[in-house]
Amino acid sequence: MAKVNDNEDMGITVKKQDDMPEWYAQVCLKSELAEYAPVKGCMIIRPRGYAIWQSIQDWFNKNIVQATGCKNAYFPLFIPESFFKKEAEHAEGFKPEVAWIDKEITKDSERLAVRPTSETIMYDTYSRWIRSHRDLPLKINQWCNVVRWETQATKLFLRSREFLWQEGHCVYETEDGCRDDTISYIRLYEKLCRELLAIPVVVGAKTAKERFAGARETYTIESLMPDGKALQCGTSHELGQEFAKAFGISYRGRDEENHLPWQNSWGLSTRLIGAVVMTHSDDKGLVIPPKVAENKVVIVPIIVGKDPGLVLKKAAELKESLKQWNPILDDRDEYTPGWKFNDWEMKGIPLRIEIGPRDIKDEQVMVVRRDNSDKQAVKLSMLKDRIDEMLEEMHSSMLSAAEKYLKESIVAVKEMQGLMQAIKDKKMARAGFCSSTDCEEMIKDQTGGATARVIPFDEKAKADDRCVFCGKPAKHIVYFARSY
Amino acid sequence: MAKVNDNEDMGITVKKQDDMPEWYAQVCLKSELAEYAPVKGCMIIRPRGYAIWQSIQDWFNKNIVQATGCKNAYFPLFIPESFFKKEAEHAEGFKPEVAWIDKEITKDSERLAVRPTSETIMYDTYSRWIRSHRDLPLKINQWCNVVRWETQATKLFLRSREFLWQEGHCVYETEDGCRDDTISYIRLYEKLCRELLAIPVVVGAKTAKERFAGARETYTIESLMPDGKALQCGTSHELGQEFAKAFGISYRGRDEENHLPWQNSWGLSTRLIGAVVMTHSDDKGLVIPPKVAENKVVIVPIIVGKDPGLVLKKAAELKESLKQWNPILDDRDEYTPGWKFNDWEMKGIPLRIEIGPRDIKDEQVMVVRRDNSDKQAVKLSMLKDRIDEMLEEMHSSMLSAAEKYLKESIVAVKEMQGLMQAIKDKKMARAGFCSSTDCEEMIKDQTGGATARVIPFDEKAKADDRCVFCGKPAKHIVYFARSY
Repeated sequence: MAKVNDNEDMGITVKKQDDMPEWYAQVCLKSELAEYAPVKGCMIIRPRGYAIWQSIQDWFNKNIVQATGCKNAYFPLFIPESFFKKEAEHAEGFKPEVAWIDKEITKDSERLAVRPTSETIMYDTYSRWIRSHRDLPLKINQWCNVVRWETQATKLFLRSREFLWQEGHCVYETEDGCRDDTISYIRLYEKLCRELLAIPVVVGAKTAKERFAGARETYTIESLMPDGKALQCGTSHELGQEFAKAFGISYRGRDEENHLPWQNSWGLSTRLIGAVVMTHSDDKGLVIPPKVAENKVVIVPIIVGKDPGLVLKKAAELKESLKQWNPILDDRDEYTPGWKFNDWEMKGIPLRIEIGPRDIKDEQVMVVRRDNSDKQAVKLSMLKDRIDEMLEEMHSSMLSAAEKYLKESIVAVKEMQGLMQAIKDKKMARAGFCSSTDCEEMIKDQTGGATARVIPFDEKAKADDRCVFCGKPAKHIVYFARSY
Repeated sequence: MAKVNDNEDMGITVKKQDDMPEWYAQVCLKSELAEYAPVKGCMIIRPRGYAIWQSIQDWFNKNIVQATGCKNAYFPLFIPESFFKKEAEHAEGFKPEVAWIDKEITKDSERLAVRPTSETIMYDTYSRWIRSHRDLPLKINQWCNVVRWETQATKLFLRSREFLWQEGHCVYETEDGCRDDTISYIRLYEKLCRELLAIPVVVGAKTAKERFAGARETYTIESLMPDGKALQCGTSHELGQEFAKAFGISYRGRDEENHLPWQNSWGLSTRLIGAVVMTHSDDKGLVIPPKVAENKVVIVPIIVGKDPGLVLKKAAELKESLKQWNPILDDRDEYTPGWKFNDWEMKGIPLRIEIGPRDIKDEQVMVVRRDNSDKQAVKLSMLKDRIDEMLEEMHSSMLSAAEKYLKESIVAVKEMQGLMQAIKDKKMARAGFCSSTDCEEMIKDQTGGATARVIPFDEKAKADDRCVFCGKPAKHIVYFARSY
């Protein structure tokens, strides 16, 4: 295996393009974002990983929860078995994945599930909260852990038996009001991915086969990972009135009659951290967009000669003056500057500031960007402005690079041969599609696993577009890809 | 039952001093902080209640996590059975309360518990993270849900099978370093209670009988509720080296030898919201300290005559200009101002601003404080400054009132008769105590349930102090009370 950097033990020992799963696991583990838990199928989110989640939470609470008049709340971890049974399709969808509490505990009472999602327990409650049109729209979000008893191998952030997420659950008077809002939430997710995480996504609807259990329409944001697999980064679901019927939610309308309301739910999870890692990181280790970096700067003093006093003093002053970027000062005396460079590159600190005797004399520092290794001498008098600019530039160029990759990876195909080749080439295939589940299954078979990821909002099938599989007139343009 | 206010259906129908449990439940339910879940023993934290928890989290993350160099992380919900068995005392303490996952799910693998607390799974991990003295102190906090299978009746926020909390878990090189920090965390909890929640507490140690399972010393903050029962609002535990031994945590010291480290853990929970409600609220409903109020102001337009236009316009302008306090504008036309006053008093909005035609002419508004009903005319030009001042005054006077109550409720006693009378009078009894568990049990029996709540840090037993039960020389001063 190729040696990637000077610290064989410490560094990433495989290249991203050679063995992406192994590279990904090493980046997560060695940059200390997460690790496998001693409990099978679970993970531990370490402080560096949890800090990214907190950045996502802060952005979300401000730009999605507060901005849309939603409120955070908390519902129980345990869900009675009878609740699942009320909405048949939903129950069937989650059945294989539900973890139950031991009957020794619940005794003669009803069997309890550990929540895989909270539709049922929340909507049972909503049936008591909602009386009148004045109670609508009702918009509730919760941050919590959910459990789905995966049997496939654990992948840090991407697949684990427990993960953290948010789930929003809203109720509306009208079908149109509900649909508009369901779409506006998926658009806000798109915004979060671009503005916070520098990840471009394709926004659109799922095919019937790929919909959430119990939903009449599922919207999704799909990003494409560097191995050509799509990753679903967030979904919002139009639930129609089925849950309202099942859970007895109704409201007295403006016409003084009783009505069934319309509902949606929407969620994103710690899986997003996996998307960030895969999209941006490189053979040296973690690269994350500056907005979610807990420490945006690391200061490495360059000690030359026997007297480190002046350099350490200046480096400490620098740390103090750059507080707003929460800098790390690496003044460990047991490591060389080169070792430290590698270490902090692996851990993904966006900007490295080097300061040595000569820099002090010249009233400057060297600033190095993590994503492209650009190195610039910056006068101390300009440093604060320059840091802000460089962090902005870094975000923009990470987003541009990811957009370029996504654009170049979408291949328009008209026939199965082209589609199969595109999947083989690790691309996302853009094709006309008749939207029958039979064709969808055949495509999955023949490509060895590619599925319909998204019917993009912004592209409509033309009159002469044909289904890539059966050749009948296309109802939609669909992007097919393998997926996580 | 006495009618407390004009809205019999809406208002609180019992007085705080007549039936505190019923009053408390009504305040929580009717002010929409929380409600009983359809799952036995669980609760739903509604948006108004969750907003208080978010205020606590924000204060905590800034003043405790960040300020002490601690980091947030997340460990799994599930804990393998073998982990519990490693620390015998700890296992025994939690045994009756643990909920297990159904064996149908875990199959041939080890039995899994839903975490009642995370010492074991975190320390197993720490044994791999900690190698050298350079890795210490290690300070990790997690915000999560925990489950303890209570069999007693649910009390909203105070006792439920699932609750939300934070648990801090730190590891130190030295015993002194660990003890100092364990005490400093309980002191930070005291600060949180006073500065954020306007709740005065007694800070000190627990007796051996009341210690956390597996701890060598437990520190506590105890507040006294208006019914004379003490409420434990937070604890920090010196864990000594027993967990380190059990989980194989050791470090290479500065002397190049291997050593066992010293550990602590510390936690507070959503129970604090219960303390806030009981301490401050009144017969009209919820009163909460302004710092944790999501909406600090409610604006009620006083419509006189047939044309509400000007008043509503001015009220809307007011709302816009007071944005920083997240005001509610109650412009519902189906309710009278009096009805609205009662409604927002019940929901505990700290300041009510009334604006009518005459106020507009006089360029003023009426401002009413929730805690004491003080009403003042405030010129619009002075309003912003005055709001800040009034919120500060409100916090101070709520804290003073609670301090006065706590001080007056502590009764010094020298013999059992005095102690029994004090408990009967709903006081906290201050007594010399020999610190034997036998005496502690006898005191509990004879008082019908009072326990040793705290050995206060700031009071030492004098040479001639005697144990209130056996008359032998007192080792400590102890506060006894009934408790939640």
